Amino acid sequence: MEDFYLKQIHSPQDLKKLNEEQLEELAKEIREELIETVSKTGGHLASNLGVVELTIALHKVFRSPEDKIVWDVGHQTYVHKLLTGRYDRFSSLRTENGISGFSRPSESEHDMFYSGHSSTSVSAALGIAEGNKLKGNKNYAIAVIGDGAFTGGMVYEALNNAGRSDTRLIVILNNNEMSISKNVGAVAKYLAVIRSKPSYFRLKERTESFLNRIPLIGKKCAKAIFNLKTFVKNLIYSSTMFEQFGFRYMGPIDGHNIPQLCDALEGAKEAKCPVLLHIHTTKGKGYDFAEKAPAAFHGVSEFDINTGEPIFSGDNFSKEFGTFLVDMASKDRRICAITAAMSLGTGLVAFQKKYPDRFFDVGIAEEHAVTFCSGLAKAGMIPVFAVYSSFLQRAYDQIVHDGALQGQKIILAIDRAGFVGEDGETHQGILDVPFINTIPNVTIYSPSTYSELRADFVQAFYHSDGLVAVRYPRGAEKQLPNDFHFSVEPFDLYGDESCQIAVLAYGKEFAFACEAKEKLQQQGIQIKIIKINRIKPIDSKIYDYLLPCRVVAFFEESERNGSVGEIVGAHLCRLGFGGKYRHIAVDNQFVCHASVSSQLHKYHLDTDGIVEEIHSVLDEENEKT
Amino acid sequence: MEDFYLKQIHSPQDLKKLNEEQLEELAKEIREELIETVSKTGGHLASNLGVVELTIALHKVFRSPEDKIVWDVGHQTYVHKLLTGRYDRFSSLRTENGISGFSRPSESEHDMFYSGHSSTSVSAALGIAEGNKLKGNKNYAIAVIGDGAFTGGMVYEALNNAGRSDTRLIVILNNNEMSISKNVGAVAKYLAVIRSKPSYFRLKERTESFLNRIPLIGKKCAKAIFNLKTFVKNLIYSSTMFEQFGFRYMGPIDGHNIPQLCDALEGAKEAKCPVLLHIHTTKGKGYDFAEKAPAAFHGVSEFDINTGEPIFSGDNFSKEFGTFLVDMASKDRRICAITAAMSLGTGLVAFQKKYPDRFFDVGIAEEHAVTFCSGLAKAGMIPVFAVYSSFLQRAYDQIVHDGALQGQKIILAIDRAGFVGEDGETHQGILDVPFINTIPNVTIYSPSTYSELRADFVQAFYHSDGLVAVRYPRGAEKQLPNDFHFSVEPFDLYGDESCQIAVLAYGKEFAFACEAKEKLQQQGIQIKIIKINRIKPIDSKIYDYLLPCRVVAFFEESERNGSVGEIVGAHLCRLGFGGKYRHIAVDNQFVCHASVSSQLHKYHLDTDGIVEEIHSVLDEENEKT
Repeated sequence: MEDFYLKQIHSPQDLKKLNEEQLEELAKEIREELIETVSKTGGHLASNLGVVELTIALHKVFRSPEDKIVWDVGHQTYVHKLLTGRYDRFSSLRTENGISGFSRPSESEHDMFYSGHSSTSVSAALGIAEGNKLKGNKNYAIAVIGDGAFTGGMVYEALNNAGRSDTRLIVILNNNEMSISKNVGAVAKYLAVIRSKPSYFRLKERTESFLNRIPLIGKKCAKAIFNLKTFVKNLIYSSTMFEQFGFRYMGPIDGHNIPQLCDALEGAKEAKCPVLLHIHTTKGKGYDFAEKAPAAFHGVSEFDINTGEPIFSGDNFSKEFGTFLVDMASKDRRICAITAAMSLGTGLVAFQKKYPDRFFDVGIAEEHAVTFCSGLAKAGMIPVFAVYSSFLQRAYDQIVHDGALQGQKIILAIDRAGFVGEDGETHQGILDVPFINTIPNVTIYSPSTYSELRADFVQAFYHSDGLVAVRYPRGAEKQLPNDFHFSVEPFDLYGDESCQIAVLAYGKEFAFACEAKEKLQQQGIQIKIIKINRIKPIDSKIYDYLLPCRVVAFFEESERNGSVGEIVGAHLCRLGFGGKYRHIAVDNQFVCHASVSSQLHKYHLDTDGIVEEIHSVLDEENEKT
Repeated sequence: MEDFYLKQIHSPQDLKKLNEEQLEELAKEIREELIETVSKTGGHLASNLGVVELTIALHKVFRSPEDKIVWDVGHQTYVHKLLTGRYDRFSSLRTENGISGFSRPSESEHDMFYSGHSSTSVSAALGIAEGNKLKGNKNYAIAVIGDGAFTGGMVYEALNNAGRSDTRLIVILNNNEMSISKNVGAVAKYLAVIRSKPSYFRLKERTESFLNRIPLIGKKCAKAIFNLKTFVKNLIYSSTMFEQFGFRYMGPIDGHNIPQLCDALEGAKEAKCPVLLHIHTTKGKGYDFAEKAPAAFHGVSEFDINTGEPIFSGDNFSKEFGTFLVDMASKDRRICAITAAMSLGTGLVAFQKKYPDRFFDVGIAEEHAVTFCSGLAKAGMIPVFAVYSSFLQRAYDQIVHDGALQGQKIILAIDRAGFVGEDGETHQGILDVPFINTIPNVTIYSPSTYSELRADFVQAFYHSDGLVAVRYPRGAEKQLPNDFHFSVEPFDLYGDESCQIAVLAYGKEFAFACEAKEKLQQQGIQIKIIKINRIKPIDSKIYDYLLPCRVVAFFEESERNGSVGEIVGAHLCRLGFGGKYRHIAVDNQFVCHASVSSQLHKYHLDTDGIVEEIHSVLDEENEKT
């Protein structure tokens, strides 16, 4: 199908000219565009297919960017991007210098925040609404948030503050009974009840007409009915949780019906208080494979449109972790697995099936997850919280206060550590080492291969105390040289001990260092590599290998401040190291979306980068002498 | 009054022998002991006076430590400590090597967690309850949590997971209409409604008897009544928010009535699902001054029992900040103040009174606070979030994701930065520099005096971009030498530039460095001091002053990893610094309760410590030559 309407939309203004029928056509075109593009670029498909009509209705009813639409998590903004002047560039989705897969203010005035973490939109929109009020500005602030995000505590902090304010805040709860995984917990069940009995929860109308229909027969009965009316009237003012939070509740309504959505949004604009509009949608709507397996189509790699099958697949650290954890759990009944709504992404699906009693999906609630682990540990279990590096940031205080300080054994399985590629700034795993490094009494391992991953978890389970983190990258292991042997010691030497040029690396970076060693050797330059296995605490013996060196170069896929290379550098300084020290890392920057290999290249962390840096430091040395 | 009963209680077992009347006497004795001790040691008074009867009832009904009582925030455990074998040592409360002011497992098997941050207890207790279930252990896990903590999002994450589980979890919501400040938001108002209309919310009983009293007169009426019965029956199963979260709700009951409490707790034990028991208490109960001003008696210094007046008072950084912010806000209408339930502690009471529209107490919700600030900034305001260093940890991800990444101006006023003294491990402000250092594009100032504090905020308001933090210590400024002049530049030199021994310091530590300089001078040793004003980013010119030195010594009230001294050390190493580098900081440890001066002394961060360290490094230098 030709994009007849879609290509006419250069801004939300253009959309306002279309009639109901044309908007329906537009919705179809958008769905085809989404499926077509994402099948090639990868990205978030199911959630965007679910909000096609909602996004159209929002831009029909509101005036963006004066009215500010804040999209929770930011990966549900593809339709919004198509309708706000980014249709022409949409095929560049998630590619270097192309359109980002998340909301991004530098791309468009219609994008309010760089956003990739869940459950923040109500807070941000409330801030805008309060600011508007202070400035006497009558525009609206609209938060669009899924039911999955309602498992995150920040939403309740925001609701608690917003409810009884008199700001122009509209919260749209997009209830698709899904977050990333099938949604969990009491709130999801509660929403499902509302969704299944809409009339029951439309209490005001229903009660009124119901009470009016009761005949007044007999004096006693009349009095009873009168009392009852008062009683029920009191009840209905707090019938939903959202009303208890002080919101006007509207809904639930069909989120795929544009006229209904427009009516409801117009209604919400008239309210004198914050409104929660509850809509229900189907995640993956309009693409069979995605409707049937919305979790699998939450975030996808390139896939075949006709079969829904991914084009590439293979082994990766997440899968290896999942398989290994099932194996360990079969031998040790204390081992529990915890995920924050990421059972698929973190490789825990098999564990969930095999040991449902010991598997806990807590929702998008990383803070609760860590403190919950602390409770499990107190009761004698060995909790393993599998989580993406970037999302673990949310539990910093819990790792400090409920984890490390308690001294109990809690294991963090940190997936997507290092560059993650196309997801960009909000998803990079380059802060976990710096922020965990700040915390006393924590141990961190960073394996380079699957077999090391397994060995590190065994260390964590049976040969470590307190809180232990094992961090591993996105994707598959890299081949290491045959003559390298992993020792399970805190570090390994690869190369000739007497060599005076030392390269330090850990995790995936070690593989690049090995390749660089090989290349440099061909160019007549010998290096030795210190592969750090336990990156916190650093074994002090490591310095015996470094102090005699002319050159020490540390290559690290991390923000520089707080990183291992900075700790080693500062310690070398204290020890009076007389050679040259180089530390290649990300320096005080957020890392944009691009392929992982491009990111590695940009920051001089791939094989060529290492070779170049060694040449550069040797050149400098020669100049001075 | 003699402690007749209290001194007989060596463990909860002893308490179980007392009858109702004796327990009442015990409660009185406990109150006197609390007031007496806290008037001398300082500490948390009002909250402990509020839970005297609850604590007695808990230990009467449950079997601690098999049944595990998890106290939220941990500062409400004084009564619990008195009843679990710590009466004899109670006068050592909050003193070095004495009884901690928070729950502390190393002190007693009855203390479950080191706890000082709010809203974590339900998560931890749920972990214990799930662990118990997996082990087939029938003991109870009990979380005791105030209504203030219900403004923190983690509680809802935990409720969402706990509600529909079948664990032996009992959550006791202690509703005293107060957290640290007067409690805020929709949930507080909602609880106040329940509290004021207990019978209305005791729906099951009430509705049943009510419906039974309706006479069945006439056919139509009978049918209507029948329908109504079904309708109301459906409603009552989700009448309170807690029932919507899947808990069995009990209450509200009088939290100062021991027999009622015991009955309710016995009832809760019988439930087949998690129970939320709602009790209401009076914060400060039994001590007039505290009942009338519970916020002032939340955390107190030594006071006069007869007048309720603090024994010492004076100026401090919090007050100076508050006064200055009011002044700035009078000139700039964009300036807003945000607090997370700490308006008194952070010095914002005057702002709250003078500019209520621009003042936001968001509850104990640091995460929401930062993201809310991001929204305010988007709407053109200048938000200032005043927060204790230790509590800001909770918003690490929000500072990264909703703050720094957005590039908008948000100002963090970080109070209690550095050692805080008697509150101990959970409250030390020694992580803020390390964890904020890890975040790109953030500026941090650390003033030494009130006038610098003001100058730094002016920098933050009008001469900086993006997220800016100004951090300042607990207590008052220290006198600086008359011949030192603050420049508002990123750093200042104090002493002779050509001197080859350099001491680096910032914030309060600079005053000690000045005193040490004076002492060393008297001993014939000249040093120069580099006072760092803007600690992130470090001005690279600083290295011009350091590289020519024989000795560089950095004294820093911070955890070492990620600190400024480590960044400087690593950079000196990269620059090929040939002298001696010392960095005195807290090394991978949590810092226990003691006076601030004792903590400074222990970590060699007071004047004597600096003098000793300089001698030590000079001795070492002499040995080698």
